[in-house]
Amino acid sequence: MQTLRVELGDRSYEIRIGDDLAACLPPAPSAGTQVLVVCDARVSRLYGRRCEEALRRRGFVPCLAEVPAGESSKDLRYARHLYDCAIRAGLDRKSFLAALGGGMVGDLAGFVAATYLRGIRYLQVPTTLLAMVDSSVGGKTGINLPQGKNLVGAFHQPWAVAADLTTLRTLSRREYLSGLAEVVKYGVIQDAALFRRLERNVDRLLRRDLRFLAGIVARCCEIKAEVVTLDERESGLRAILNFGHTFGHALENATGYGTLLHGEAVSVGMAYAAAVSEAVAGFPAGESRRVGNLLRRLGLPVKARIGKRHLRWADFVRAMSTDKKVSGGVPRFVLAQRIGAVVAGCEAPASTLEKAFESVQAG
Amino acid sequence: MQTLRVELGDRSYEIRIGDDLAACLPPAPSAGTQVLVVCDARVSRLYGRRCEEALRRRGFVPCLAEVPAGESSKDLRYARHLYDCAIRAGLDRKSFLAALGGGMVGDLAGFVAATYLRGIRYLQVPTTLLAMVDSSVGGKTGINLPQGKNLVGAFHQPWAVAADLTTLRTLSRREYLSGLAEVVKYGVIQDAALFRRLERNVDRLLRRDLRFLAGIVARCCEIKAEVVTLDERESGLRAILNFGHTFGHALENATGYGTLLHGEAVSVGMAYAAAVSEAVAGFPAGESRRVGNLLRRLGLPVKARIGKRHLRWADFVRAMSTDKKVSGGVPRFVLAQRIGAVVAGCEAPASTLEKAFESVQAG
Repeated sequence: MQTLRVELGDRSYEIRIGDDLAACLPPAPSAGTQVLVVCDARVSRLYGRRCEEALRRRGFVPCLAEVPAGESSKDLRYARHLYDCAIRAGLDRKSFLAALGGGMVGDLAGFVAATYLRGIRYLQVPTTLLAMVDSSVGGKTGINLPQGKNLVGAFHQPWAVAADLTTLRTLSRREYLSGLAEVVKYGVIQDAALFRRLERNVDRLLRRDLRFLAGIVARCCEIKAEVVTLDERESGLRAILNFGHTFGHALENATGYGTLLHGEAVSVGMAYAAAVSEAVAGFPAGESRRVGNLLRRLGLPVKARIGKRHLRWADFVRAMSTDKKVSGGVPRFVLAQRIGAVVAGCEAPASTLEKAFESVQAG
Repeated sequence: MQTLRVELGDRSYEIRIGDDLAACLPPAPSAGTQVLVVCDARVSRLYGRRCEEALRRRGFVPCLAEVPAGESSKDLRYARHLYDCAIRAGLDRKSFLAALGGGMVGDLAGFVAATYLRGIRYLQVPTTLLAMVDSSVGGKTGINLPQGKNLVGAFHQPWAVAADLTTLRTLSRREYLSGLAEVVKYGVIQDAALFRRLERNVDRLLRRDLRFLAGIVARCCEIKAEVVTLDERESGLRAILNFGHTFGHALENATGYGTLLHGEAVSVGMAYAAAVSEAVAGFPAGESRRVGNLLRRLGLPVKARIGKRHLRWADFVRAMSTDKKVSGGVPRFVLAQRIGAVVAGCEAPASTLEKAFESVQAG
């Protein structure tokens, strides 16, 4: 088992990564501590009982609350449903929530934990690769409004993160690969050695070698933890985590949410960000090619299309202008200078953006 | 103008109390900062324009959002309405909310500020005595669920509190007196000199002498600020602010919410807490009488009744057991040892509680 610590003063916590959930979970602060485990129906069927048993072994008293699978559950209506479950279960200020599942459940349950009785503690128990390396660490919680994603939320750090790698075995191929896109991102933004390790071990990644993944997941969490420690509330550095995301979000928007998985959109977004980086940030062409090649070898998309139709530049200009991180109508990018070093808050001339887009689509 | 500071590290802020709203407001952090002013229809009519003008003078760009008057607006439905208003107005992470009004608007707008885009800054602009001395300071925000009050919320400190005392002139007599109950509370829990000042100046209090009130409001805010500084998230000391509230909440519950104003219920609760303090905390009978006398002279109720019917002990036992601060089914009280010194977390035998109740009702 690997243990990491996110240093945030009195909000510090441990991330434990292993293959036995009970061992990854922290012991209950006092015997009989209640915990409401939030998950979707599929995860409940696969891991609900295992999670309850593991929690009981650590001294918690668990009970389960289900929400429908899918992004549409990240809604005020389901937050309300979970408040009702929490009240019915008798949760008080000393009780916990646990988010068992992927990013959706983590964001929703985290938001409910942040706001029930003005905030109770919660555990992140991620069961997807994306949640393990990204959304379960850092305390961002959120729900969607019809007007946009994550427009309502809170920064509320988990009390602990318990990642049982064996849950990765039941992920669909698409979901698993989507998580790998974020893994590649950590290499590009912060760690050239990690990037090389990925390049050299594509086969182990693709066959979900848990021994190998343990080290990879731990390294990604370590990078995220460092960034979060330095910028908990996203006032600066934390923006580097959005490499590939400005374009990725626009792509999710342009193709209709749910068409692409988040990691798939980020994969295309990184190919595009690499091309823009080449044009304006001195990112060497050879390194840019390495990014595209690795994504392709992992089976991830690097071109913007819906089905077989390639998207066009005009489709994006519109979509990009609605991004909530756009300030003053100008899209801002995280650009790479070399693999392992990026700069946030960059602008680029519209003509450059269009040219980079066309080169990715043609490439 | 009086200026106080609530010391909370990077969440510190100033409270300014005066008779000119623009002077009490802080300058906008940058010219053109948007601010959504939340208020109810009555306050909008009385002070909406004045507040907008004052904000403009301080460099903000204000726009108004109304909610219906009354506690029933502290609901997820109106939070949703305000999210919509914020999005329509184009509020981004650098924008502000302002809560213009009493405790309801402060709690609701504070909650929306705590959760819109994962938290934006907000101003408290209290227009009731209760909000000035109590709810606008300390960062507690909340909304109600059908199952109970403030079951959803967040700790989110305001960026500044601007109290324009001249707004107290338009308060109804009942609302104004209700605020005085909390003023008396500060004397009992922390400041015998303040209590004496109130005893000696009942006439100035009753005729709303703003010069006199300026010092009183400032002293109450100072006490609240000290307590909040030492215990921001209510893990201990902050409980002393609930003197009279265990019983007060039960009374609000037993009489049906909205029958009594909060301060009226707290007034009766303090008379009762004084009697219990006499019985088990060594509170001298003479001081207990002084508490009851001051409340009576201020026109505040000290007996539990609905209309002319006195309530009975059995009505409360039930109501008290549903309080969210009750732990393990045993109600806990803040009890006075002398005027100016209280202890939180006290228990008392049921027979003592009943006897104290009967003595208050008969007294």
